[in-house]
Amino acid sequence: MAGNNKKFVEEITSMDEDFAKWYTDIVKKADLIDYSSVKGCMIIRPYGYAIWENIQKILDARFKETGVENVYMPMFIPESLLTKEKEHVEGFAPEVAWVTHGGSERLTERLCVRPTSETLFCEHFANVVKSYRDLPLNYNQWCSVVRWEKTTRPFLRSREFLWQEGHTVHRTAEEAEERTLKMLNVYAEFFERDLGMPVIRGRKTDKEKFAGAKATYTVEALMHDGKALQGGTSHNFGTGFAEAFGIQFLDNDNKLKFCHETSWGVSTRIIGGIIMTHGDDSGLVLPPAVAPIQVVIIPIQQHKEGVLEAAGKIYDTLKAAGIRVKMDDSDQSPGWKFSEYEMKGVPLRIEIGPRDVADEKCVIVRRDNREKSFVAISDIVAEVNAGLNKLIDALREKALENRENRTYVANDLDELIKIAGEKSGYIKAMWCGELECEEKLKEVADVTSRCMPFDAEPVGDKCVCCGRDAHKLVYWGKAY
Amino acid sequence: MAGNNKKFVEEITSMDEDFAKWYTDIVKKADLIDYSSVKGCMIIRPYGYAIWENIQKILDARFKETGVENVYMPMFIPESLLTKEKEHVEGFAPEVAWVTHGGSERLTERLCVRPTSETLFCEHFANVVKSYRDLPLNYNQWCSVVRWEKTTRPFLRSREFLWQEGHTVHRTAEEAEERTLKMLNVYAEFFERDLGMPVIRGRKTDKEKFAGAKATYTVEALMHDGKALQGGTSHNFGTGFAEAFGIQFLDNDNKLKFCHETSWGVSTRIIGGIIMTHGDDSGLVLPPAVAPIQVVIIPIQQHKEGVLEAAGKIYDTLKAAGIRVKMDDSDQSPGWKFSEYEMKGVPLRIEIGPRDVADEKCVIVRRDNREKSFVAISDIVAEVNAGLNKLIDALREKALENRENRTYVANDLDELIKIAGEKSGYIKAMWCGELECEEKLKEVADVTSRCMPFDAEPVGDKCVCCGRDAHKLVYWGKAY
Repeated sequence: MAGNNKKFVEEITSMDEDFAKWYTDIVKKADLIDYSSVKGCMIIRPYGYAIWENIQKILDARFKETGVENVYMPMFIPESLLTKEKEHVEGFAPEVAWVTHGGSERLTERLCVRPTSETLFCEHFANVVKSYRDLPLNYNQWCSVVRWEKTTRPFLRSREFLWQEGHTVHRTAEEAEERTLKMLNVYAEFFERDLGMPVIRGRKTDKEKFAGAKATYTVEALMHDGKALQGGTSHNFGTGFAEAFGIQFLDNDNKLKFCHETSWGVSTRIIGGIIMTHGDDSGLVLPPAVAPIQVVIIPIQQHKEGVLEAAGKIYDTLKAAGIRVKMDDSDQSPGWKFSEYEMKGVPLRIEIGPRDVADEKCVIVRRDNREKSFVAISDIVAEVNAGLNKLIDALREKALENRENRTYVANDLDELIKIAGEKSGYIKAMWCGELECEEKLKEVADVTSRCMPFDAEPVGDKCVCCGRDAHKLVYWGKAY
Repeated sequence: MAGNNKKFVEEITSMDEDFAKWYTDIVKKADLIDYSSVKGCMIIRPYGYAIWENIQKILDARFKETGVENVYMPMFIPESLLTKEKEHVEGFAPEVAWVTHGGSERLTERLCVRPTSETLFCEHFANVVKSYRDLPLNYNQWCSVVRWEKTTRPFLRSREFLWQEGHTVHRTAEEAEERTLKMLNVYAEFFERDLGMPVIRGRKTDKEKFAGAKATYTVEALMHDGKALQGGTSHNFGTGFAEAFGIQFLDNDNKLKFCHETSWGVSTRIIGGIIMTHGDDSGLVLPPAVAPIQVVIIPIQQHKEGVLEAAGKIYDTLKAAGIRVKMDDSDQSPGWKFSEYEMKGVPLRIEIGPRDVADEKCVIVRRDNREKSFVAISDIVAEVNAGLNKLIDALREKALENRENRTYVANDLDELIKIAGEKSGYIKAMWCGELECEEKLKEVADVTSRCMPFDAEPVGDKCVCCGRDAHKLVYWGKAY
């Protein structure tokens, strides 16, 4: 049955009018964040933090299923430790916050607030790894990190953000590569299955890889406006950090060898990605897996006999079935409530009024398309679960369609410049592998390489930039 | 049946010989922590962090049952914000870490790394609280905080530590006081029921209360060596912070009023408290509620037919029953394994050898007293649950006995000085309420007031120090 397309909430900017303003309107009006007097840092409010808690719960369990254990490293890194791996320090030193005083005393060595914790993990690994019997170590930590960004946006780029960083140590190169790809797949499945965000899995070019990594793999998502978002990355460090930090083990052939390491992470920017993939002009649209409230019950004419009782029974039934349900029997009007929970992206709304009570039915309204179904109260758990499943499938399909509609192919430089100037989305084009061409595309078309996708069909055999032989297919785009 | 009292692990210092060294031996040898090059900060290793995760899981669920929601505040506090509440800044400014540079630029205003987040919460509350309808707000955050301590010890006092800090805002003084005590009781029940650590609930003297609080309540535990440990605190701020930060609401009588606030917290020092309450000369002894491994299965003569299969079945059965179980079928000797899991404080050990397999039995050994029971494999879940319950009851009883044996009464100053000099434990004594007397006791007997317990029988009517009339019973002691 077709839904009602009336726009209930008038106060937010339309996404077609000003996507950036629409985004900031949502993060504020859906009570996800608040600003504070700390420039570039955000307060994550209960509704926003509950989304992050759900993300954590799902990912943490999946990490642990693969044998990962959590740890906690200090938040400070002495300058001398940060500088041990050359590429790494060059990548991060320009954007770290420095602690120079403890109480009233000047520190003899300044400490940076971790922008990422490779150096601390490596120092620890060098202490504890002795023999091949100690390997692998599969560690992870959930923490906040700091990068002194000039321009900031809630969730997408802030001076402090929450994330997880996995760090593993292995005996062989093969095992490290396997772990790197395994974690990339954990991320990809989470994005696609749970968040309804289709991603491209691929490898970063050397220019875009992590400072100090041998190879960086990425899952790239495309936002509603056609800009790309790096959803998560997984790095194979080879033996680079192990050599810089002296992480060696005695192998069973009695030889001392350097360990192979990986690291991998996702952050609160996932929340920004969810907003920009699924949101609409009425507000947020949340994937059920991470929605703090999956179903809101709104009684209609709630002072009439039997309405609150029937609503209460539905609430109890859904809660007992493990569904995150809320009942709003406050004195606000139903119309106000509809707008409020649409703004907050609650996947399903249940309406129940006096006539429904008599019929032993209620109405389920989907957040994404406002489709209404009249269902028997006795079937409520099955109907709600079906509704949640349909919604996430529809979100995924719509996002995939958006990506397909916004994926272009460029065969030469003129074509690429034209597409980049006129369209917003991915541009598939061949690349020779030279940094020079990559930099030129940034200069002339303002695009960066997002990734070299796994198992992709080439779209030609000449570099889109220089015309030389090219075997690498690259997705180019503009990114958050 | 009496257990075997042989001391398997020879490498740790005996607690009677050197309690401090015994403590540091345990935190290292049980793989709880590692040191890093960041002075005064610690690395919490997987086994230590898993204890913290269990603590978090239990407390977080209990907080939420009382209507608490989690949030995240920035880790930095601008100097001007920290100094808004006078007593508060005096309490914390001398021990904060200061960030003065972001990247290569000097900041126009320096930022401290949060030692606690009252100022940030208050700034936010002032933004979002408008009407009595917005109240109460019951917020909590799990995070790390930094205090620039001179001398540090793992878990007990470190420059960075993990904790939770609850912050709530209320309409009335009564409601704030109720919340303050409610959270104190959540802590007290957790300590007593789940951790087997009996606590004294009481109020702090003005000298010992939180910087900026109207009243601080505490749960105080006594360690094996007779020193006290402040387990958790709950503060009633009255309207002090609200006045400093302008947190006002329009009440239903149309008057603008200041809010009443509370805050409450516990930290990773709980883990230090567990070690010093229950540990022994063989290592850690962990309360089942927070033990990462509740039961370890050690097959005996594991290469003999049927042993590993039977052990595997026990493992599967316990795991299916929701018990945290580990099987160690590595090539180490059973004796080595016994020592290893005793060091790690695993509450129960199951031994199963060829003869047990034939008899369809196994042996359960309790960590605390090494008592052995021969049990039928078919009863394993019930037997393990009974064993875990007996163990936590025994730990609690032993800790209570230790506290009772170490609680003294002093009627005058000479007696107090004598007890403080010769014994280690609580000294109950009356106090007139004057700061002067409190300071004198610190000077002459090196004791501080731990708390004024709720519902306690007075032990006299004259101040132990000055001899004037006194109505307050105080527990005095030396504290971690």
